[in-house]
Amino acid sequence: MTAAQHSVGPVVSQRVAFETPFCFASGARLPRWELVYETYGELNAAKSNAVLICHALSGHHHVAGWYADDPKNIGWWDNIVGPGKPIDTDRFFVVGVNNLGGCHGSTGPSSINPETGHPWGADFPVVTVPDWVRAQALLADHLGIEQWAAVIGGSLGGMQALQWSIDLPARVRHAVVIAAAPKLTAENIAFNDVARQAILTDPDFHGGHYYRHGVRPVRGLRLARMLGHITYLSDDQMAEKFGRRRRQDAARFSFDVEFEVESYLHYQGDKFARWFDANTYLLMTRALDYFDPAEPYGGDLAAALAQARAGFLVVSFSTDWRFAPSRSREIVSALMKTKKDVSYVEIQSRHGHDSFLIADPYYHSVVAGYLAHVKT
Amino acid sequence: MTAAQHSVGPVVSQRVAFETPFCFASGARLPRWELVYETYGELNAAKSNAVLICHALSGHHHVAGWYADDPKNIGWWDNIVGPGKPIDTDRFFVVGVNNLGGCHGSTGPSSINPETGHPWGADFPVVTVPDWVRAQALLADHLGIEQWAAVIGGSLGGMQALQWSIDLPARVRHAVVIAAAPKLTAENIAFNDVARQAILTDPDFHGGHYYRHGVRPVRGLRLARMLGHITYLSDDQMAEKFGRRRRQDAARFSFDVEFEVESYLHYQGDKFARWFDANTYLLMTRALDYFDPAEPYGGDLAAALAQARAGFLVVSFSTDWRFAPSRSREIVSALMKTKKDVSYVEIQSRHGHDSFLIADPYYHSVVAGYLAHVKT
Repeated sequence: MTAAQHSVGPVVSQRVAFETPFCFASGARLPRWELVYETYGELNAAKSNAVLICHALSGHHHVAGWYADDPKNIGWWDNIVGPGKPIDTDRFFVVGVNNLGGCHGSTGPSSINPETGHPWGADFPVVTVPDWVRAQALLADHLGIEQWAAVIGGSLGGMQALQWSIDLPARVRHAVVIAAAPKLTAENIAFNDVARQAILTDPDFHGGHYYRHGVRPVRGLRLARMLGHITYLSDDQMAEKFGRRRRQDAARFSFDVEFEVESYLHYQGDKFARWFDANTYLLMTRALDYFDPAEPYGGDLAAALAQARAGFLVVSFSTDWRFAPSRSREIVSALMKTKKDVSYVEIQSRHGHDSFLIADPYYHSVVAGYLAHVKT
Repeated sequence: MTAAQHSVGPVVSQRVAFETPFCFASGARLPRWELVYETYGELNAAKSNAVLICHALSGHHHVAGWYADDPKNIGWWDNIVGPGKPIDTDRFFVVGVNNLGGCHGSTGPSSINPETGHPWGADFPVVTVPDWVRAQALLADHLGIEQWAAVIGGSLGGMQALQWSIDLPARVRHAVVIAAAPKLTAENIAFNDVARQAILTDPDFHGGHYYRHGVRPVRGLRLARMLGHITYLSDDQMAEKFGRRRRQDAARFSFDVEFEVESYLHYQGDKFARWFDANTYLLMTRALDYFDPAEPYGGDLAAALAQARAGFLVVSFSTDWRFAPSRSREIVSALMKTKKDVSYVEIQSRHGHDSFLIADPYYHSVVAGYLAHVKT
């Protein structure tokens, strides 16, 4: 069997426009808004086999497959979503969506603010994880999906799965929460803050209205992504991948790229800064900072999760220091305290936080095994 | 006894000009160069009681005491250096020096390049830890000190103490190596790289020649320092100090300062950016990247340390994740392998890498106890 046979194949993005206002947690509102999404597999007659994939900081709706006119543009989680894959499109109707505030087609900072006739820029409402859950629920309504068989995500995506289980318990049968945390630590927020300050203080940011100046804050976005990459990889993995190796062509005794790790970070930063929107980066990191589903329950995560009716699979990775296994265990402890059905697996992995994107056989077998028992 | 009685009191910085060229490891040379330094206590007749304090990234020669015309400007390690203190100026003649490339008076990037008549800027030679050791040895010659009773430093300062013991073994009786590492990891270099890129890509950097443009790359320097602070503190300490607390006056749902940890980082970044020189920051971080005393010995740290004749005190701190206790243990293992006289203490501390600057009673008693047995 070839890789193509395991793929959902060519896919087409879809778009839905909502003509009723969206009200954010902040009190802001969008009079009219759109979401782009993709679907893989077939919705069954009972509409009971739908799975929602929630994306993380730099993700989007293009989860699996490729575009007929751009065959190299393969979905970001294609290794786990497809026919016969752990999130099996032969059984499930899988939905990927670009979140509100994103930069891949859903209404976001580069969309036109109807009040000004210009892009929203940094005036786009600050969006929270509960906001995204409500927007995704309206997409579910549009698709005729009353209840998701599963809501699945890694990192910030896992946080959305957790929030779904608390805010709309009747609409989620299973939540798969991978490489997540119940809320950010001060150190997590601090890293986000440095990334945001890099963007906000870039002279090309223009208060978030760079679109009209014909520039983009690429310097700040590049720094933000370089810093992000340090927190996505494990110390061990960096040591193994780069160590203290120098580039053979490097000038010595200068501030140019000399160590391999510098070359890697610059490449990643440059690549990201070319295509990602800085205002979206600000929104995504702030949503992370604000995420704290226990807050409305007096800080008691178990009380928050007592709302849930879903079964849970919680997965962490041994070398993830952005959201370490101990953070997943906080979620598991709270779920056990309130007697929920929860499976927890800590995967031995060298790939740090990024492990959730890697096709590790044991990790994939855990997800496949859990979903095999999800009734459709 | 009052705090003033424990202080070395008012001090005066001194300056020495060297009229013979300084040759850097890179091959560059300075035809004429100066060091600023301070001394505390009295050099005994045998000149056998001299202690050198080496500074870290943002340190300088003003280690203890204050200036008569600026009594609030207290030395950066005043809590450990003074009469009756662990580094006891009643017994020792203590020398603090601003390293070459610094921004506190020694020849550095803001000094005039005699070839151009303008400040060196980013053309100042890239300086290494072995370069600093040789420069400090010339200062010792100037002071008539043939052998240091001890060379002491924390972080990058500890690395200098280690390098002294290897490069000039006859001139060091004891090396006190605190919160250091035998070389940087890929992750350590990666953090330095992001900090440097923040400075190098600041439009006010002007290729390092900002002096002549009447500006300073304060944005980049601020980001570099903010990032540094994350690595200086422990996750636990940040959680305890800031947690997820919000400023009471903060606007919600914005990118302004809202969490206390953001306020702290901005304050630290702004303060540092006002007084520190960006070119010096670049040099200091590059010296850290390059530090690897084992490299000339085929990567064998024990072979490098076999050169040493000093006794060693190695100190690490439990919550230091910049240079973790495991990094100090690498040094200790190499010293033991080559049968050197070494004491090692891991201090339980909540203050992360910054612990070496904190007046923890146990830490101070360890340093005091070790130095009490140093013959003068």
